[in-house]
Amino acid sequence: MPRNRVELPELVRALTAIVGENQASTRAVDRSVYSRDMWPRLLLAVRAGAPVEHPPDVVVWPATAGEIAEIIRVARRMHVPIVPYGAGSGVCGGAVPIHGGITLDLKRMDRVIAIDDGALTVTAECGLNGERLERALEARGLTLGHFPSSIYCSTLGGWLAARSAGQMSTKYGKIEDMVTSVTAVTGRGDVLVSGAAGRAGVGPDWTQALVGSEGTLAVLCQATLRVRPAPETRLLRGFEFARLTAGLEGIRRVLQRDLRPAVVRLYDELDSWMALRGGSHAADERPPVHQAIASLEGEPAEIEDDGLIGRLRTLLPGRGNKKQLLREAMAAALDRPRLLNALVDAGAARLGRRGCLLIVGVEGPDRRAHAEARLVFAELERAGGKDLGEEPGKRWLAKRYAVSYNMSKVFEAGAFVDTMEVASTWERLIDLYEGVRQAIGKHAFVMAHFSHAYSDGCSIYFTFAGHGATRQASERKYDAIWRDGLAAATRAGGTISHHHGVGLSKGPFMADEHREAMVLYEALKSAFDPDGIMNPGKMGLRERQEWPAVSPA
Amino acid sequence: MPRNRVELPELVRALTAIVGENQASTRAVDRSVYSRDMWPRLLLAVRAGAPVEHPPDVVVWPATAGEIAEIIRVARRMHVPIVPYGAGSGVCGGAVPIHGGITLDLKRMDRVIAIDDGALTVTAECGLNGERLERALEARGLTLGHFPSSIYCSTLGGWLAARSAGQMSTKYGKIEDMVTSVTAVTGRGDVLVSGAAGRAGVGPDWTQALVGSEGTLAVLCQATLRVRPAPETRLLRGFEFARLTAGLEGIRRVLQRDLRPAVVRLYDELDSWMALRGGSHAADERPPVHQAIASLEGEPAEIEDDGLIGRLRTLLPGRGNKKQLLREAMAAALDRPRLLNALVDAGAARLGRRGCLLIVGVEGPDRRAHAEARLVFAELERAGGKDLGEEPGKRWLAKRYAVSYNMSKVFEAGAFVDTMEVASTWERLIDLYEGVRQAIGKHAFVMAHFSHAYSDGCSIYFTFAGHGATRQASERKYDAIWRDGLAAATRAGGTISHHHGVGLSKGPFMADEHREAMVLYEALKSAFDPDGIMNPGKMGLRERQEWPAVSPA
Repeated sequence: MPRNRVELPELVRALTAIVGENQASTRAVDRSVYSRDMWPRLLLAVRAGAPVEHPPDVVVWPATAGEIAEIIRVARRMHVPIVPYGAGSGVCGGAVPIHGGITLDLKRMDRVIAIDDGALTVTAECGLNGERLERALEARGLTLGHFPSSIYCSTLGGWLAARSAGQMSTKYGKIEDMVTSVTAVTGRGDVLVSGAAGRAGVGPDWTQALVGSEGTLAVLCQATLRVRPAPETRLLRGFEFARLTAGLEGIRRVLQRDLRPAVVRLYDELDSWMALRGGSHAADERPPVHQAIASLEGEPAEIEDDGLIGRLRTLLPGRGNKKQLLREAMAAALDRPRLLNALVDAGAARLGRRGCLLIVGVEGPDRRAHAEARLVFAELERAGGKDLGEEPGKRWLAKRYAVSYNMSKVFEAGAFVDTMEVASTWERLIDLYEGVRQAIGKHAFVMAHFSHAYSDGCSIYFTFAGHGATRQASERKYDAIWRDGLAAATRAGGTISHHHGVGLSKGPFMADEHREAMVLYEALKSAFDPDGIMNPGKMGLRERQEWPAVSPA
Repeated sequence: MPRNRVELPELVRALTAIVGENQASTRAVDRSVYSRDMWPRLLLAVRAGAPVEHPPDVVVWPATAGEIAEIIRVARRMHVPIVPYGAGSGVCGGAVPIHGGITLDLKRMDRVIAIDDGALTVTAECGLNGERLERALEARGLTLGHFPSSIYCSTLGGWLAARSAGQMSTKYGKIEDMVTSVTAVTGRGDVLVSGAAGRAGVGPDWTQALVGSEGTLAVLCQATLRVRPAPETRLLRGFEFARLTAGLEGIRRVLQRDLRPAVVRLYDELDSWMALRGGSHAADERPPVHQAIASLEGEPAEIEDDGLIGRLRTLLPGRGNKKQLLREAMAAALDRPRLLNALVDAGAARLGRRGCLLIVGVEGPDRRAHAEARLVFAELERAGGKDLGEEPGKRWLAKRYAVSYNMSKVFEAGAFVDTMEVASTWERLIDLYEGVRQAIGKHAFVMAHFSHAYSDGCSIYFTFAGHGATRQASERKYDAIWRDGLAAATRAGGTISHHHGVGLSKGPFMADEHREAMVLYEALKSAFDPDGIMNPGKMGLRERQEWPAVSPA
């Protein structure tokens, strides 16, 4: 592959000739904004005030698949990487332009092309924001049923690119279960339409090859997805189980009886304690991770109740104001994660809160939802669940999107927080839970919940908070958590990701996940993207070329 | 690629060294048996007494994936094609060894490895016969829910290879919806295990790349599939609709209300007339195509009732016995397919049997099945269906596997019969039906039913019977039917196959089906099977090498 020194003005001229003068930018502010996504590791650098590390050379906003095909042909000719970009809410660094080049923002491609009441499908462009898509369907009495916590800050294309799962996935499926057809521009510059003819038996299913490819094979431009009538009724309920395994058994039985609650979330002992803390079930409506971190950060009202402030002053003498005291207490606690995990665990036990909270929600047409809910709730009670009424479910529902916006406080306070979502079939699930929990628990404060259930298995969503004295120390700890956590997942026979995707952060673990098949993925990559310009360096794929420096001159 | 003259004794020595002395055969009888599958075009040659055209050079019966990997390495080294073989019930020529070489029969690999009551999955080897798999599950109170009409003469591997659909697919899904993991040996000789870790978001889904690949990428050795509790209750019902479109509307509404009857079969006017003929609904329990052909062949009892024999003797004077008379009448009728289609259509109208028969079946746990059936039946009545009671459904159920065994009579009588299954989304379905029906109707007597319904679309199953004066004339007509039928399917925006696969017969139409993506399939083929030894010449893929003659010396 020849190596050119790419002249930026020439590249920009070529791009503006395709998209128009105002739809390509080399401004510093744009390059900075598009230099990262929501991968928490990058927030450590931001907090440390580090300079922007991986800006794109140019950001471009195409309007059609045809324009994207032309841009890809330019990129091939000039040997410039292309990074497709939706809303930047990914948490694995998948949208980071690590070799610079062109960031292709799809947000202008945000039309709802058609809502077909007959076939019950929606066709939309991939730059469409998730919440806007759902509202367009709502206006027609329909729903996609896809509600990731990022719904306000993610796009249809991003969902498809990373095999997204929404909070109601147990009923409606993951995004790959909903999509029937995609229009994509491959790294060859060809426009490919998959699956449009209907259910087929004609060899490879290209839709399922493109879904989850995170921009490494093609740019997803448009998709058709199955939709449903909007539910008339939603019934929420909380249950408490004495043990995690009993709750899991309840979920398994529900799924295997062909019941399909929209939401099933079973929190482990610690996560449940955070969710139920205070006994009233209503005191704190924030998601558990925020409550946990909040208690570490020390919210005055709660902490004075506990008389903790005084004790902390004894333990950490000489600290000035309460805020500083609490920050340092959190840092000190997070610096001893094994001890912290053990103490919090013991504390939960002492307070009689060792039970596990399960939130379940059933929805659909009024009479059917009630009938299905009766069967679901009865099955959970048979498995040992104690009915807590609808309050815990309502609390969860009210705050279900909060998690995507509230991260900054933890980072401001000098710590970091992240999530790891893995999955396996039922028989390995507890081993997977214990293995990953221990692996993370060596380094960080950790809790988990089980959601996204299937008849044959379930995913586990770990939330962890850690602390390092410096940016470098934090990064080392962060990397160790992922290295040890995913190694434990693989050892237990689980998958390294259920719905956040792979991006940069999990690339090194792809060989363990795919084994012999990695050579096939490489071959697929070569077929779709012979020059390797599509989101290079991601998903553990090898680089196809060394990238030339882009010269601003 | 070097071209060798392969010495058969050397090849057989290499194979017996792997599988043992008695597990490889070059006997004429074996080579004859394995020279074809159930592709009807080949039956024309058989009927004409033509010599075996495409025998394998050697048939081998491996016992493990490891043995298959060794065999593939031998085949790569010696440049010999490999054709995986299950039970030979395919109807597209997919198992025909058109270049000779090794036919790899998997029937020794027929173990049920594990039935997991916890995860509700079954793991079995791919050579396992379908009916034996279902019986093994039945003994544990479970079902796969996969009931193709070939169930007695097909294997798990064959189902997966061709994306099979069973008669209950509307509830249980196609085979690709049930399978969660496969173990396969690629054309590289690598053993690949896909999907075993659970639901993942880590890029390509190899299971869905291998399912439907019909032996062109890998040999499927073992699979894990989701199973269900065996239904306690099955409720069958027939409905009559005044028009086909009304019946389709009824099915669409049922599916889109999230109801999942196991069986939905809507016969078009002609097919319905055959099914309901005689008015009693009980006179004839055979599938419609057999009734149709039987009336053309002339079964004495029925035909004397009709007084048809006398009329035929007037029309075709001088014929000897009744059997000969009837054969010639059938041939004469099938030689004028447009007229026949029009007359039968008119006859159906005159008899007041222009309505369309819909058979629906709901099953599951007792109370839930009754509740779901009430909703399904009510929806069908709202769409204009007239309740015919359970008789039509019971008749269908009793004879549902008959179709796979009774072909020979038609062929013995000098005609041919075949089926074409296509699919599309709802809005294009009637255009697809009319287009393909007209295209086939120019050449053959044709009828159709709609089955395998989805919320967004449905498949159509055409049955056609034709006649040519000679083998060559029959083959020309047969080829014209497929050429015109599939061109019409593509024009109407439908897919060229829903669940019979592609094999040899539909290979020429793959470029129209996949368009730009065919280059990707070629690339996938190169990745999985760099030497092109896996079932060469199938599915419209280009040949990777010219095959050397195998020398018996």
